[in-house]
Amino acid sequence: MKRKLIRVCAFGILLLLASGLVNAQDADLLPSWNDGASKQAITRFVKEVATTGGSGFVQPAERIAVFDNDGTLWSEQPMYFQLAFALDRVKALAPQHPEWKKEQPFKAVLEGDLKTVLAGGEHALVELVMATHAGTTTEEFAQIVNDWLDTARHPRTGRPYTDMVFQPMLELLAYLRANGFKTYIVSGGGIEFMRPWAERIYGIPPEQVVGSSIKTKYELRDSEPVLVRLPEINFIDDKAGKPVGINQHIGRRPIAAFGNSDGDLQMLQWTTAGDGARFALLVHHTDAEREWAYDRKSSIGRLDKALDEAHAKKWTVVDMKKDWKVVYSFERL
Amino acid sequence: MKRKLIRVCAFGILLLLASGLVNAQDADLLPSWNDGASKQAITRFVKEVATTGGSGFVQPAERIAVFDNDGTLWSEQPMYFQLAFALDRVKALAPQHPEWKKEQPFKAVLEGDLKTVLAGGEHALVELVMATHAGTTTEEFAQIVNDWLDTARHPRTGRPYTDMVFQPMLELLAYLRANGFKTYIVSGGGIEFMRPWAERIYGIPPEQVVGSSIKTKYELRDSEPVLVRLPEINFIDDKAGKPVGINQHIGRRPIAAFGNSDGDLQMLQWTTAGDGARFALLVHHTDAEREWAYDRKSSIGRLDKALDEAHAKKWTVVDMKKDWKVVYSFERL
Repeated sequence: MKRKLIRVCAFGILLLLASGLVNAQDADLLPSWNDGASKQAITRFVKEVATTGGSGFVQPAERIAVFDNDGTLWSEQPMYFQLAFALDRVKALAPQHPEWKKEQPFKAVLEGDLKTVLAGGEHALVELVMATHAGTTTEEFAQIVNDWLDTARHPRTGRPYTDMVFQPMLELLAYLRANGFKTYIVSGGGIEFMRPWAERIYGIPPEQVVGSSIKTKYELRDSEPVLVRLPEINFIDDKAGKPVGINQHIGRRPIAAFGNSDGDLQMLQWTTAGDGARFALLVHHTDAEREWAYDRKSSIGRLDKALDEAHAKKWTVVDMKKDWKVVYSFERL
Repeated sequence: MKRKLIRVCAFGILLLLASGLVNAQDADLLPSWNDGASKQAITRFVKEVATTGGSGFVQPAERIAVFDNDGTLWSEQPMYFQLAFALDRVKALAPQHPEWKKEQPFKAVLEGDLKTVLAGGEHALVELVMATHAGTTTEEFAQIVNDWLDTARHPRTGRPYTDMVFQPMLELLAYLRANGFKTYIVSGGGIEFMRPWAERIYGIPPEQVVGSSIKTKYELRDSEPVLVRLPEINFIDDKAGKPVGINQHIGRRPIAAFGNSDGDLQMLQWTTAGDGARFALLVHHTDAEREWAYDRKSSIGRLDKALDEAHAKKWTVVDMKKDWKVVYSFERL
């Protein structure tokens, strides 16, 4: 009888832990972070908002944390991974589009001439996205993304793109959730490009992914309802668009925001301007050896104004080289 | 020692209940529903998807239920409550707009001539919404909505509009949540009009409210970030827009959908076309005494095509008069 009681109790305690009622702030859930100012700032903030009765306590429902994706949760060099997807899609779709052999930016893509593609600027990129991201149903597109991730490999590491997520940030996501936070992605990347794998890789379910989108249209195909993806921009979730996307999807102001570039500046401003304890963090790419080193002059993930504002406002700036014991989990294999 | 152990265990069992691991399907959590086909269909479906190991079992993460608001969760007569809000706002703002005394549809509103307002059709309504819903920050607007709800009274019952929610539907929301469902509002009404009170009244947090919206713009006012509401339509979450809004916000197909009008038809089609156990329900307003009776010919909440499709597809149609013991909770006072 007593034995059974103890067994039931053990289960209860597991549940207590799972339900986040026991604060997970003391256990070291951030093993890939070196002890230092960044890690201390994170744990201090979490302890402050998650301690019942403390002066900085925040109700779990209000513990919203938003994360940029490219350059914050996974790498973004030598090009945004979604652009690599779009280029691969052009090649896959080329047989159905003989005209692409003569039309830019498709011609350059098919010839592997990335320089010319990028020289086309935003207009060329929008054309590529529309040609490769529209025209399917939402379910077909999710399947295409998953199939691509299964086979595509990163040019430098030769690994699946989903291996190139930052181990310390995975730990941070889990640590925040263990302390009652709801974690969201708020990315300039495509919402439908991220959703098919965000739950598996980051533990972030589709309804907690905010991103850029194209319009969709509901229609009946042989009396089967489908949502068709249209070649028309719906929303750009970048820069000043990020607080707009947050408000549209979440309807509450986050208390913590994590980014790595000027595209995240407004999200960090919006988050930190609320009342009570607030936290803002930038990942600074300083590690040319294990990852990449770039900031103020990079065309991808430029970090310039946001870095100045982070210093002025004492936001946490992660020095990737110094603060992270490992960048990718496969380093430890 | 043993006593303490038992106390800890009691707490653990409470947690088990709270965490939804113990099915709540057997307790009568729907006391305002008469026993009959509608209630049976609801409980049969919930039992099917929530029974671990059963053939119709659905993972909790996929137990998404979507509810229309106007006419489904609260009344919508003699006019949509948000329209009553807009008309009251015109009156409140009139001193700042002397020109409204001569301009339609404002002139008619100020003269209490609803017939002329409605004769202006969609164009007049859009003008009213833009004049009364835009121009403030998001936070100011939420305050305006809450202030209005505190003072405005329904013309027939003399009660606050938030008293005019359907008691059986409140029970249904709670019953679904007790069985691991995540409940969403998916309404043609304004997303920012519903969010300030949806959590308090329905237990539905802001991030689970989907609705129509106007555009917002991020800006710094004296270095304070704000989101300003613009007089420009962003999204109409009605009819074929409902599956689009569901996909945009939730990114999963619901397994249960609840509506009351032709505006909900596509949402019910989209929901029921998925694999596995599915549930669709329409609230049919049949009770002229306790609420209102209207369907195929009503200009508000018309239920015509969706009623035909419900019969053809054997969706559940709630006969308000027959199926509900009470409509509003205040009836029991």
